[in-house]
Amino acid sequence: MSYTSESQVSVRYAETDRMGVVYHANYLVWMEVGRTDFLSQLGFPYSRLEQEGVLFPTSGCSLRIIHPTRYEERLLVRTVLETVQSRKVAFRYEISRENRVVVAGQTTHICVGPDMRVRTLPRPLHAALKQALNEKK
Amino acid sequence: MSYTSESQVSVRYAETDRMGVVYHANYLVWMEVGRTDFLSQLGFPYSRLEQEGVLFPTSGCSLRIIHPTRYEERLLVRTVLETVQSRKVAFRYEISRENRVVVAGQTTHICVGPDMRVRTLPRPLHAALKQALNEKK
Amino acid sequence: MSYTSESQVSVRYAETDRMGVVYHANYLVWMEVGRTDFLSQLGFPYSRLEQEGVLFPTSGCSLRIIHPTRYEERLLVRTVLETVQSRKVAFRYEISRENRVVVAGQTTHICVGPDMRVRTLPRPLHAALKQALNEKK
Amino acid sequence: MSYTSESQVSVRYAETDRMGVVYHANYLVWMEVGRTDFLSQLGFPYSRLEQEGVLFPTSGCSLRIIHPTRYEERLLVRTVLETVQSRKVAFRYEISRENRVVVAGQTTHICVGPDMRVRTLPRPLHAALKQALNEKK
Repeated sequence: MSYTSESQVSVRYAETDRMGVVYHANYLVWMEVGRTDFLSQLGFPYSRLEQEGVLFPTSGCSLRIIHPTRYEERLLVRTVLETVQSRKVAFRYEISRENRVVVAGQTTHICVGPDMRVRTLPRPLHAALKQALNEKK
Repeated sequence: MSYTSESQVSVRYAETDRMGVVYHANYLVWMEVGRTDFLSQLGFPYSRLEQEGVLFPTSGCSLRIIHPTRYEERLLVRTVLETVQSRKVAFRYEISRENRVVVAGQTTHICVGPDMRVRTLPRPLHAALKQALNEKK
Repeated sequence: MSYTSESQVSVRYAETDRMGVVYHANYLVWMEVGRTDFLSQLGFPYSRLEQEGVLFPTSGCSLRIIHPTRYEERLLVRTVLETVQSRKVAFRYEISRENRVVVAGQTTHICVGPDMRVRTLPRPLHAALKQALNEKK
Repeated sequence: MSYTSESQVSVRYAETDRMGVVYHANYLVWMEVGRTDFLSQLGFPYSRLEQEGVLFPTSGCSLRIIHPTRYEERLLVRTVLETVQSRKVAFRYEISRENRVVVAGQTTHICVGPDMRVRTLPRPLHAALKQALNEKK
C-alpha cells in the first residue's frame, strides 16, 4: 500500500474560461479525480464506501496556482495522503506538466454517515490508511 | 396557474470558455434553472417533489444556439410547458438578451421513483400541469 | 483516416447530481472530449486549429439518455463524423457502458474566425474530413 | 465606495452531487459571482477591465465548509476586500444561509496583461480599491 498515487487528466475545453486558461475551480475537480484513484488503488473504491454508508465530504481545501494550464495539455495529478485521524483524513496534491509543478493543493475530509453526522472511519479503511502513511516514513 | 415562467441569469465567468463565449453545456443548466422556477411558481417546488419520491430525470434535450452570449450579460430564460403525459413532461425554452432570442431548447423528463423506475406523476401535480396547459389555449 | 474515434471517460464525483446519477449536461462535455480526440487523431488538434484562427462553436446539439450513468463507471465515447460542408461539420456520438449504448447524441458546428464571423473550413482540414467520410462508405 | 458587497445565489441542481449537497468546487464559482458584483458596484465591471487588457487570474484560494448547502436554498455571498497591492488584490468571503455563515473563503489575484505577464493595477482602479479599503477602518 502506497501513501501516494498518480492520475492523468487532459484539459477539456469546458474547463477553460475566457482568459484562455483553466478556470481555477476545476483544479478541485482534478484533485477529486486523484483522491478517487488513491482510494481505489488502496482497495477501497469510494463508490463502494458510499454504498456502505461512509461519506467523506470536503470540509476544507486550498489551492496555489503557480502557472496557468491550457486546453489539451496533459497533466499529472499526484495525490499524497497527509494525515489520518479517527474521523478525518487530509490529502495534499501536486499537479504537474512535463515534470514541473503548476498547481499545489490540499483537502481535508470528515467522515460522516448518510445522515451527514460525523462518525469514525470504518476499521479496515483506517488500518489501510495508517499502513499507507507508515510507508511514507 | 401559468404555462410559462421567466427566470433571470447573469453569465458567470466560470460559464465561459476560451472562445470568449458561454460554453454550450451551460445552456442546459440555465434551462434547469427555468424549470426549477416554473415548478416552484406552480406550487410544486422540485426539492419538495424529490423529498416525496418524485424524480424527473432528463431523458432527452436539444439546443439551438443562434447567437453566442458572454460574461456579465443578463439573460432571460422563458420556460414553456409543452406536453404533459401520465409519466412524462416536456418543456420548451427561449433564452433571450435584450428581447432577442439567442438560444432555443427543449427537454423531456420521465417521472421515476427513488429506485429510478418509471412511475406516474402524482395526481395533484398532474392536475396542476394540465390546468397550466389549458391556460395556453 | 477514420470517420470514427473512441475515447474513454471515468465518471467524476463532480459530474453527478443529487439524484445519484450523472447530471445530463456533462454528456455534452464528454462528447466534446470525443470531438477533441477525433480531430487530434485526424492530425488536426483543435488547440492548433484555434491558434490558426479556426473556431468551431457548437450551433446545435441534442441528447437522448437511455440509461443513467453513475460515479466511477467507465464509459466509452464513440464519435462519428456525420456531414462535412464548406462552413459546417456535424458529429454523432454513442456513449456506452460494457458494450451497451446508454446515451446517444449529435452536435453541429459552424466554422468561424476569431471575430466569430462565419468562414470556410481551411482546405487541408476540409480535405481530411472528406476523406474520412469516404472511409465510411 | 464600499469595501464589501452582497450577492444572492440560489443553489442549482447542477451544483449538487450524489451526496445530496453542493459540490465544494461550486463555492469558488459563487465567490467569483461575489467578486464580479463587488467590482461592478465599485464602478469597474470586470468585463470592461478585461477589454482594457487588465486580467485578474486567481493565484490562490481556500475554502472552509462549515455546513453543507442544498438544492433550492437561497444563499448570501458577502465579499470583503482584504488587501490591495500594486500588482495583487485579495478578497475574503462569507456565504450564509438565514444569517448563519455556512462557508468561509478567500482568494488572491495577481494583475496580468493579455499576455499573462504581471503588470500593475491601472491607477483609477488602484485608487478606488484603496479608497474602499479606507472605508473599512
